[in-house]
Amino acid sequence: MVKLMDDEVFRAFTTYAAVVIVKMLLMAPMTAFYRFSRGAFANEEDVASKSAEERKKQLRTHPDVERVRRCHQNDLENIVPFVVIALLYTLTGPSLSSALLHFRVFAGSRIFHTLSYVCALPQPCRALSWMTGMLCTLSMAYGVLGSVLVL
Amino acid sequence: MVKLMDDEVFRAFTTYAAVVIVKMLLMAPMTAFYRFSRGAFANEEDVASKSAEERKKQLRTHPDVERVRRCHQNDLENIVPFVVIALLYTLTGPSLSSALLHFRVFAGSRIFHTLSYVCALPQPCRALSWMTGMLCTLSMAYGVLGSVLVL
Amino acid sequence: MVKLMDDEVFRAFTTYAAVVIVKMLLMAPMTAFYRFSRGAFANEEDVASKSAEERKKQLRTHPDVERVRRCHQNDLENIVPFVVIALLYTLTGPSLSSALLHFRVFAGSRIFHTLSYVCALPQPCRALSWMTGMLCTLSMAYGVLGSVLVL
Repeated sequence: MVKLMDDEVFRAFTTYAAVVIVKMLLMAPMTAFYRFSRGAFANEEDVASKSAEERKKQLRTHPDVERVRRCHQNDLENIVPFVVIALLYTLTGPSLSSALLHFRVFAGSRIFHTLSYVCALPQPCRALSWMTGMLCTLSMAYGVLGSVLVL
Repeated sequence: MVKLMDDEVFRAFTTYAAVVIVKMLLMAPMTAFYRFSRGAFANEEDVASKSAEERKKQLRTHPDVERVRRCHQNDLENIVPFVVIALLYTLTGPSLSSALLHFRVFAGSRIFHTLSYVCALPQPCRALSWMTGMLCTLSMAYGVLGSVLVL
Repeated sequence: MVKLMDDEVFRAFTTYAAVVIVKMLLMAPMTAFYRFSRGAFANEEDVASKSAEERKKQLRTHPDVERVRRCHQNDLENIVPFVVIALLYTLTGPSLSSALLHFRVFAGSRIFHTLSYVCALPQPCRALSWMTGMLCTLSMAYGVLGSVLVL
């Protein structure tokens, strides 16, 4: 059971997977914060305590809320594949240095991606950070399929 | 191979992970049901067999369909991180009672969340069930990062 | 560590999980391609280098982009559950032939699903491929919960 955690590479995977997943999870409270501060809700029951006029006005989309939600969606589309591929990659027994390189670059690129997206930094900040993370995952996938292939 | 399944905590993880993932998966047929019963489709090929007039009318969004889709999206944003963090947490070798507590509270909170969302129960039903699930995942992530940290 | 990879079923799981995850990941560059070729962007910073008039015109949604994004979303909703359930299923020690059957049918159905969605093939191409993939995952979930159940 605890055998897996005896492995240094698996411990590194555990650390970085937990970090990026928690980062992704924190997009939800951030969306909630923007919904309340901008007064933009999606469900009728969320504005039930307000006056009829307010209620109508607050059932809307707001560009700031949509921006955070797109960022969250992009996390789902990139961080979940990273976790799966990184787990398989870790189990193929790579060297610690090569694994850490992949994990660190990915984690860094996703944190910078969130900053670029939420603060609307000028392009190509967001495009480059997205591409860096994607190349990390693809590089590990290449490693996995190169060493293990049962079709 | 079957070593992992010899562990009681891992078997508990397997059970609850399978349950919440199947719950999430069943949101898709529910969306399909609402699409057909409300007559609200997203793709032209889905209404190809209908008359031209019907076709135009049914290519639309419907509040009930959108509600189920938001619920499904919220599942993706919360259940997938739970599965990843719970797997890592299980591999750090927690006590069975503490693991079962996390898994049961999470599964219960997500089932209640779906009920709250789809039936539009008055707030704070949905907010509280969402927050309970999130705190479960964060508590396990804290346990993981506290016992394993390789940066 | 490398014990898991000694198992033939686990190597098969690794292969198919990596293949479907990479397929899902490639939906993102495809979305980017459609965004550029159709001139339909979601963020102001993405069109910052263009003239004021162009900028306004390109901040819009386009049916082709939305179609690829719905396909990507459907992948997230189906491929991620498959990976989780298939991992648990693999760890319960199924026969290689039965595991390969599930993995191959799922991978095939998802590739055909993407084709059906992006090329807008007439129904029921998309509906059938989606249902096939879903039944694969549910069949494995049934196997998992049948052999391991700790509530």
